[in-house]
Parts: sequence; structure tokens; C-alpha cells
Amino acid sequence: MARTGRRPRPPAEEDGAATPDTRDAILAAARAGFARSGYDGASTRAIATAAGVDAALINHYFGSKQRLFVAAMELPFDAEVVRLRVVAGPRDTLGERVVRFFLELWEEPVRRQILLGMVRSAMTDPEAAAMVRRVVIEGGILPLIAETGVTHSALRATLVGSQLMGLALIRYVLCVEPLASASIDSAVAAVGPTIQRYVTDPLESL
Amino acid sequence: MARTGRRPRPPAEEDGAATPDTRDAILAAARAGFARSGYDGASTRAIATAAGVDAALINHYFGSKQRLFVAAMELPFDAEVVRLRVVAGPRDTLGERVVRFFLELWEEPVRRQILLGMVRSAMTDPEAAAMVRRVVIEGGILPLIAETGVTHSALRATLVGSQLMGLALIRYVLCVEPLASASIDSAVAAVGPTIQRYVTDPLESL
Repeated sequence: MARTGRRPRPPAEEDGAATPDTRDAILAAARAGFARSGYDGASTRAIATAAGVDAALINHYFGSKQRLFVAAMELPFDAEVVRLRVVAGPRDTLGERVVRFFLELWEEPVRRQILLGMVRSAMTDPEAAAMVRRVVIEGGILPLIAETGVTHSALRATLVGSQLMGLALIRYVLCVEPLASASIDSAVAAVGPTIQRYVTDPLESL
Repeated sequence: MARTGRRPRPPAEEDGAATPDTRDAILAAARAGFARSGYDGASTRAIATAAGVDAALINHYFGSKQRLFVAAMELPFDAEVVRLRVVAGPRDTLGERVVRFFLELWEEPVRRQILLGMVRSAMTDPEAAAMVRRVVIEGGILPLIAETGVTHSALRATLVGSQLMGLALIRYVLCVEPLASASIDSAVAAVGPTIQRYVTDPLESL
């Protein structure tokens, strides 16, 4: 009886993440809705419709729109993989590895939905803004910088964050050419040295 | 009779831009509303209430929410001043002058409202995204770069735009410390060389 209100076949989600499980179907619809319209713009009613479930089930599974948002925006992320792919390697190409890793996250469809959802929501919703600060800056960039042993890692993390977020904004949200269609290699070559400088240059020149 | 529906005293606007004129009062309320909630989030009804006018007057003066947005987001901007303050001067400090000019725009309250309104709206509204492309990239950054005579000015403009927009995002929208409270001089010292590289470095290193 837990499936009451669920339509017989799962909806065709763009990201292929819908499963026969109601909770997962709601999460997939929520990711798509938040990615498209941001937190304020995506209604739980529209998310329920897209998931093919009764709106009451969202409350049943998640309790509130805020908790649905937090669950849907959970970024699948393996800290050890990040360490191996980004921190390990020659110090003087760290910037390039950071940009490549960041862009490859965005190129993957489900993660792009999550990141778009976070960024679009963070523009007008303070809770989502706090989540971006926590996930992208404090949880993502800051530990990477701290591992290199440089001083003033908080300032460096916000500078790195400014260039990476701006790159995502131009490339994936506003889609401004030619940067929107540039290859990952070109973007890494152009932006890598900026990140390198923010991470490893002496503070006097920052 | 044109003032029908206008309340006797102008509302206390944060930006001090409200004037006894109804049209200006609507524009000031629209700037504040779009800055806070973006295009999708700001209702014309709420803007009318904030301006102390009947909602029908918005239609009378502007015709539609879209046209109200375009009128409210008009960025007071003197191309000759930009040329004098940014393009004129030593070539090797152009990046610093660009960042200083950009940050000083954001520090000025009415312009900050306009820029916040554009950026917040551009996240979910395609018309607003096109406006940001047109005003910030094509109208603002690209002509500056073209004046320097470098090649590949479109790619350079999107790279410059990515760093400037990201800086505004971290500093003025998400307000992430310590960059949010850094002095303009510090931000110019940190980000100026990035812009300089995007504008004047040979393309092979971009």
C-alpha cells in the first residue's frame, strides 16, 4: 500500500535516474525541477506530478520542501577519489587538475542537475546559498587547498571559488559562446593557471 | 488624475531613488524586487504594493512585466567614462582597472540593485540571461577588449566575464568571507592579474 498514488510505469527522466522506487522517482523529479527553476521556482506539486506520485507522498517521504531539497542536492562525491585525482600529482599543475575535475563534474548529467539546482537556488534562497558555501567552498575547495599546506587558505578558497563558479555560470547557466562550447582541454588550459596562482602564489601577490 | 492610486508620500526606499513621480516609484520598487527575488520571484502585484500604486498602473506605464524589467534594469553607464577610466592608461595594468571599475559599479547602491536583479533573474529566465550576455559581455567587456587590438576577443571576453561574474557571485550574492569583506584594493590586487592574462596573453597560453 506504500505505492498508493504511484503511476504504474516510472516517468522517462532525462537523466535516467528514475527507478521503480517512489522515493527515487521523487528525488529524480526534484533534481530536474530545482535544476530548471531553482528552489523558489520549483513547486512540490509540480515535482510530484513529474514523478507521477501524489503530492502527499513528498511530505510522507521527506517532511518538507526544504528537506526534499537537501536530499535531492546530495552530491555523490568520493573524497578519496578527489584526493587521488586532484591533490596527488605535480604541484605546478594542480590548477589544471582542479579545473578538469570541476568541469568533469558538470559534464556528468545527474551531477550537472544537482549543481544547477544548487546554483539556481542559491541566488534567491539563503538556505541554498549556505549549502553552496558548505558544499562547494568549505567542503570542496578549502580542504583541497589546506592539503597543499599554503597559508590563508580561506581567502584562496574564495578566489578559486569565484573563478570556478563564474566559469560554470558562463558555460553551463548562461551558455555564452565561445566558452560554452570550448573543449574541456581548452578551458583547462585557459583557466588552470588562474587557479594555480590563487592556490600557490605568495599572499603578497594576491 | 494620472496620480490615481499613488499614495500621498513616497515609500522609504532603501536606495533613496524614489521620487514623487509614479513611474520612477514603480521603477525603484521593481529594481528592489528583482534584486531580491529575481524576475520569476518578483510579482508585479508586490512591486505595485511596494511602490504604493495600483497594479493596473504598471500595465499603464510599462505594458508588461517583461518591459518593466527591461526599463528597471537599464544600467546608467557612460561609455566615454569607461573608456577614460579603463582603456586609457598603461597596458600592463588594464586588468586592475577593469576589476576596480567593475567592483565600484557593484558598490554603488542603485547599480548594485540593477546588477543583482540581472544576475538573479538570469539564472532562471532566458530573456534575462540574454540581457546579461548583451549588457555585461557583448556591451561591456567585449568592446573594452576589442579596443586593445588583441585577437580572439570573443573568447577573451567570456573568460573575463567568467572571473568577474564569479567574483560578484561570491562577494555580493553568496557573501562568502573573507572575499565578501575584502577591500576593493585587495580584490583588485588578487583578481587584476587574472583579467590581465585573459586580455593580453597570447592565445596559445589561453
